[in-house]
Amino acid sequence: MAVDGLFNGGDKRSFSTIPECIDAVAADEIQIGVVPLENAIEGTVHLTIDYLIHQVRLPIVAEIVVPIKQHLLVRKDFTGTLEDIEQIHSHSHAIAQCHQYIHKNMPNAGIHFESSTGRAAEVVAASSANIAAIGNHLAAKTYDLNIYEESIHDYANNHTRFAVLSKRTEPISVTLPEEAYKTSLMITLPSDYAGALHQVLSAFAWRKMNLSKIESRPMKTGLGNYFFIIDVNQPYDHVLFPGVQAEMEALGCKVEILGTYPTYHVNPS
Amino acid sequence: MAVDGLFNGGDKRSFSTIPECIDAVAADEIQIGVVPLENAIEGTVHLTIDYLIHQVRLPIVAEIVVPIKQHLLVRKDFTGTLEDIEQIHSHSHAIAQCHQYIHKNMPNAGIHFESSTGRAAEVVAASSANIAAIGNHLAAKTYDLNIYEESIHDYANNHTRFAVLSKRTEPISVTLPEEAYKTSLMITLPSDYAGALHQVLSAFAWRKMNLSKIESRPMKTGLGNYFFIIDVNQPYDHVLFPGVQAEMEALGCKVEILGTYPTYHVNPS
Repeated sequence: MAVDGLFNGGDKRSFSTIPECIDAVAADEIQIGVVPLENAIEGTVHLTIDYLIHQVRLPIVAEIVVPIKQHLLVRKDFTGTLEDIEQIHSHSHAIAQCHQYIHKNMPNAGIHFESSTGRAAEVVAASSANIAAIGNHLAAKTYDLNIYEESIHDYANNHTRFAVLSKRTEPISVTLPEEAYKTSLMITLPSDYAGALHQVLSAFAWRKMNLSKIESRPMKTGLGNYFFIIDVNQPYDHVLFPGVQAEMEALGCKVEILGTYPTYHVNPS
Repeated sequence: MAVDGLFNGGDKRSFSTIPECIDAVAADEIQIGVVPLENAIEGTVHLTIDYLIHQVRLPIVAEIVVPIKQHLLVRKDFTGTLEDIEQIHSHSHAIAQCHQYIHKNMPNAGIHFESSTGRAAEVVAASSANIAAIGNHLAAKTYDLNIYEESIHDYANNHTRFAVLSKRTEPISVTLPEEAYKTSLMITLPSDYAGALHQVLSAFAWRKMNLSKIESRPMKTGLGNYFFIIDVNQPYDHVLFPGVQAEMEALGCKVEILGTYPTYHVNPS
């Protein structure tokens, strides 16, 4: 959905895992890779960031934000009511995202965990029993299922962010208007001392540079060592950012630019 | 593994989803709940924190840290080599965590995604083909599989953190020594303005209170509104913490204590 929403046509290839997709960009097998970055249904944030930082460093050239919408899917020949549904199939996180709905409306349906929401839709399509899947409209379309009820997820404002990775320096050609512009930095502190992060943030604060995200992550070298991922709400420039970098390096921090990129919002039907 | 490592004996119950476990503690069906908090193989951090913050507020009374170890599991009657293995079954995140190992040692094995590493071990145990699962030693033991090769995960220092939730005010009885003591806070900023987080961190910095984690999370009320989860490396006290809280409230921030609790490290064999 993210790829179709941002790129109009073009050859598409799917990969089984995030590292495979990143490797394919690094090996020039594909020109542009799209990988989940935050709040994905399968919770893959850490995997993407860790792989980009520790294994294959590729620049983030754009960000795609897609709202999460979970629907209750049934076969087209299903004519019953919610009470008739005996089993619900989905990925465990999709089940959890609809916990309140299931608890209230179908407390007696058996829960069956599948490896993905797509696989759940496939299971329902192939069955002849009164069972339902939880998934998005793409899963419904792919497996020719009816949407019995739309948007059954418990939280209205849930989004998945995707990073667009590419080695190419020219701007990517997209079909959507740009919503914002961000710069992502990775900052490694010299040691785990009180107030280090506060000093780092001072460099942004007195320049009135707004941060939209900050997250500490342990280094893979052991417990107690941390780095920070910081998203700044403005494009990289040649005055403010080099000033921040110089101040941080004077404090003994290492600063790396993960990307400076536009943000696009995809609104699936 | 986390529960067995921290609690010696006692009645145990398993739940299918994180919200179900949290609900059971809230409804007094169980006295103590253990839910994943960070870096879990299924990436469930956001789900736990979101459910605790938005749906059911329960205090965190302890934290359990368990190293992630992924092993290559085969049936006990398997006598071949790595090259003979035709399929690898596991949860997609376990597959991704062993990406380099698989790529190097078994590039031709087909990858099959299962809903959990336990389910993968079950599939291998029930098969008569030359297939392997990726999972931990508990999965090997449960399904009577051999560990063909230990610790095939790409990163050595990967951990899962679990939160222990309980309404009881008396200390929980555990079998491990305490490694550290933390206090977790949720801080909601009045609006998304430049430098707000910097001001918040000042309150900790000048008191020399060390932070072991900081993470911004969007509020469920829409994009652009954030709260912060901050872990402070010391127990709640009646001088420093109330001082921090008073300063933050003067800035217009809302401060909530999610828990003040000991940390325990479980070392699985």
